Formats: sequence, structure tokens, C-alpha cells
Amino acid sequence: MQIIRTVKEMQLISIQLKNEQKQIGYVATMGYFHEGHLNLMKQARKENDIVITSIFVNPLQFGPNEDFEKYPRNKEKDTREAEEAGIDYLFLPSVDEMYPDKQLIKMHMERRVNVLCGNSRPGHFDGVLTVLTKLFHIVLPDKTYFGLKDAQQVAVVEALIRDHNFPIKLIGVPTTREADGLAKSSRNVFLNEQERKEAVWLYKSLLHGQQLVVDGVKNPDIIVKEVHELLREHVSGKVDYIEMLSYPDLLPVLDTNQNIILAAAIYFEEARIIDNIILNAKGQIKSQFE
Amino acid sequence: MQIIRTVKEMQLISIQLKNEQKQIGYVATMGYFHEGHLNLMKQARKENDIVITSIFVNPLQFGPNEDFEKYPRNKEKDTREAEEAGIDYLFLPSVDEMYPDKQLIKMHMERRVNVLCGNSRPGHFDGVLTVLTKLFHIVLPDKTYFGLKDAQQVAVVEALIRDHNFPIKLIGVPTTREADGLAKSSRNVFLNEQERKEAVWLYKSLLHGQQLVVDGVKNPDIIVKEVHELLREHVSGKVDYIEMLSYPDLLPVLDTNQNIILAAAIYFEEARIIDNIILNAKGQIKSQFE
Repeated sequence: MQIIRTVKEMQLISIQLKNEQKQIGYVATMGYFHEGHLNLMKQARKENDIVITSIFVNPLQFGPNEDFEKYPRNKEKDTREAEEAGIDYLFLPSVDEMYPDKQLIKMHMERRVNVLCGNSRPGHFDGVLTVLTKLFHIVLPDKTYFGLKDAQQVAVVEALIRDHNFPIKLIGVPTTREADGLAKSSRNVFLNEQERKEAVWLYKSLLHGQQLVVDGVKNPDIIVKEVHELLREHVSGKVDYIEMLSYPDLLPVLDTNQNIILAAAIYFEEARIIDNIILNAKGQIKSQFE
Repeated sequence: MQIIRTVKEMQLISIQLKNEQKQIGYVATMGYFHEGHLNLMKQARKENDIVITSIFVNPLQFGPNEDFEKYPRNKEKDTREAEEAGIDYLFLPSVDEMYPDKQLIKMHMERRVNVLCGNSRPGHFDGVLTVLTKLFHIVLPDKTYFGLKDAQQVAVVEALIRDHNFPIKLIGVPTTREADGLAKSSRNVFLNEQERKEAVWLYKSLLHGQQLVVDGVKNPDIIVKEVHELLREHVSGKVDYIEMLSYPDLLPVLDTNQNIILAAAIYFEEARIIDNIILNAKGQIKSQFE
């Protein structure tokens, strides 16, 4: 595995790889890997000639009150694990390397962003759009892999690629889960023993919502209400949101006769835990983003 | 010359050309060609394996009070001239082909846009940024050619390519002029006989400004004032603006010890005529954008 630190070198390598007709798979990350990240890399490894992963904690997507400085970092472990996952190039640019000057161009998205997690992070996805535009031009991937755990981010990347005609295929990778169903997350370590036991109810409640759709319940309010009741019953943490929206448009829905996302977020003492499922009109989980 | 009308086909051709390691030169236009456009194509022809030209009148860069519908079009003549200029692929997408859905992402630039011609066209360059981002992803050029007659547009494209790390080299092509120095423009035909004679003073006045820089005048206000006086003396049309700014940042300057643009626009009866020169600190015309 080669470690690349400059934009210029990474882009020259990518151009060279394209000239050699190599298919490039790309996994953009902010590092601090867990099994979810590694599964993205493994899937990219299977489907491409070359796999490039980047670790870049992007200041542009952190709000003024969000803790960019304290975002967890562990480059040694990440580097080792990327190598073990069979990554060919690990791109590790500095902030100065990615943003040598003030960006003159602002990107902004009105739709898909002011719901779910985006609701409490104004401007967050604008920063995501800018950094991914830059990274896509530097890495020149044929395919890019994002985890459906962050389903809203996948919806935003889908809009970016489609709106701007990027010659890139977006692959949404199903959420990696613990044996009991809890979605893997760097934040799970912040749960105490009791909370860890409760947290499984996040997924269990969403699956109950799925069962309602399968059973023919069409009214999103009823489904959200039942999910909410289950969570209140089993979880000590405070519910941040439970939402059922169209997917990937993330608009309010009047019924479940379409692709929808059912998503929830809970504040525990030391961690906010999120999860979601994406369903088609029959209530079947869509394991692959289309 | 092949005429391509769909985004998908054009992008597949571009990807195939890149796989064959062809160097692609690209000239984006809104059609209604004059000699300036053809010179861009000729230069691209000299410097690349493949030359792609697009004609697309982009509704996104026209304001609500600007006349998108009445923008002059002449596809038969343009097609013939593109073929004569040795273009390999002429990309002619429809508006629906370029914008099948409402764009979810807005691009916006604060700097470089609210001066010169951008001053009277709020939002114009935001639309330019979006369409060029799309076209660059569809055509996948190695080099893209823009005329320095529209020096502000070149400055905006320079920011787009640099901000977003596009793997594209921007070539600014010197303004094509009539024998007497008037910059070529589709709008020159709207000048009456008297105005056509006067219009040469646009360039002559700018060259006088250049001479002042060469002579060591450092104060932009003095230069702009003398250019203004010359224009008032020789031209019946109304001066829209005369500005001296840094280039390509297009910021106000206190002196001429840097790369600067000296630009002017005049309203004649039926046409607004613009021209500019770009000078280094010694007052030498920069014939190539760097």
C-alpha cells in the first residue's frame, strides 16, 4: 500500500491508472475505522482493479459549535487496517493541502438536508458536497462506496453525482451490525452496559416498523408512533427523531407505497446513536441503494 | 464530425477516448459562432488528439429579465463551421437532456462576479459554474479553451478548476480582433456605420491606458479617468463601466504593480460592446492566461 499526501501526486497517479484502463474503487472516510469502513473497502476490493481510500477530517463540514479538533483520529491503526483490507493507495492530505486558499465557490443543497441528522447540522452537507467534489476529481474513481448507515449522506452523494453528471457509480453498502443487530459505530464504545443492552431496541423498533409495512399499514404516522412507543418502553435515552420519508428524496410521505426510509436517533448519556432501514413499497429491506 | 445529442452517449464516447489515452480538447459555446469561437477550435485542434465542441444555450445563466428565448441561434451554420474547423464531436444537448430534473445543488461564487459585466447580471456566473461542472464531467477534457474577450468568465472558470481540483488545464485564448482593432463579437453587426467607426476607440482607449502603465503611472484612478475621457470624446454611446482590477482575482487595486485587467463596456443604440486588456506590472499585455 502506498501512502500519498499531496493532491498533485494522488491526481497524477489516478490519471496514470485511468490511462492504464484500471477500474478505480474509492472509499472516502474521516478515519477512525470500524468494521463498517472495512466492509466498504472489502467490497471495493472485490469489484475493482485498484482501491483508493482517503482519510480526511473535513473542517468544512463541521459547524462553528461542532468539535472538529476533537474528532477521533487514529492514523496508525487506520493505516494498518487499510493495508490489511488490501487498499492500494491511502490518500492522507492535510487541511492545507486540500484547502490551500479560501474556497471561492460555495455549494449548497436545499433538499434532502434539513431532515434527519441534517436538521441539527445546518451547512454540514454543503461542506460534504465540496470536499467530495474535490476528492472525486483527485481520485477519479469509477465506483465510490458509502455505508447506508449514513443513508442521508448516501442520498446527498446520489444527488451530487446525478446533478453534476459525475462519471462515477455510487454503491450504497448495507449497514454492518453486531450479532444482536446494533449498527456498528465508533460511538458504541461510549454506551454503558445498560445502554448497550437497550441500544439493540433501536434496530428492533425499526424492524417492527418494517413489519407494519409488510402487514399493509400505509399511514406513516401510525408506524412512527408505534416505533416511538417501543423505544420509550425499552430505552432510557432521549429520542432525537423518528422519521419516515421517501428515499432518496427524503420528502414527507402520505403513505408507504414507495421506497421509504425509516430512521431514528437516540441520545444516550455519552453518545448519540442512529440507525435506519430502507424499504420498498412491499416493506422489503433494500439491501442495495439503487 | 459526429453530432451527439445525449449526455449518456457523449460521456461514453469521452470515457472510451480516455481509455484510448486520447488527449481531449474542449470548447464550450452557446453557438452563433464568429471568428473568435473558430479560433478557440483551431487552437484546440493544434494541441489535442480529439476536439469536442458543445453548443448549449444554458437557461440557468440567464436572469428572469434576460432573453433566453431570443438568444441568437444558427445551428446549420455553426455545424458547418465546426466541421470545417476540424471538430471531431459536436455535442448538441437539449435543455431537457442537460436538466432532466430540477437541480438539487446550487453553486455560488461571491468573489470575481460582482464586478464588470457580472455586476448587472446577478446569478449569471452561478449558472455558468453549474453548466460547466456538468459539461466537464460529460466531455472529460484534458484542456479547455475560453476566449479572453470574456476575461471575467475565464477568471470564474479558473476558480472553478482550482477550487474543485478538476484535472483540466484552462487555456485563455487572446481576443480575436478586426483589422482596426475592434474585438470580434456577434453583436458588432448591430452597430450602425457611425458607431462602427467609433467602436474602435474602445480598444484604442484601453491601449492608451496600457501606455500610461508602461510610462509608470501607478494610480488606477488616473488611468481609468483618462480612458473615460478618451471614450467620451470619441464615442456617442454611453459608458457602462470602465474598471481596473487585479487579475484573475478581480479585486480593487491601489496600484498597477501586479497583473491587472483594464476593461470597459459601452452601450450603443442596439448593442452593448465590451473589451479588455490584461497587463502585467510592466504594462505588457498578457497574451496567454496563466
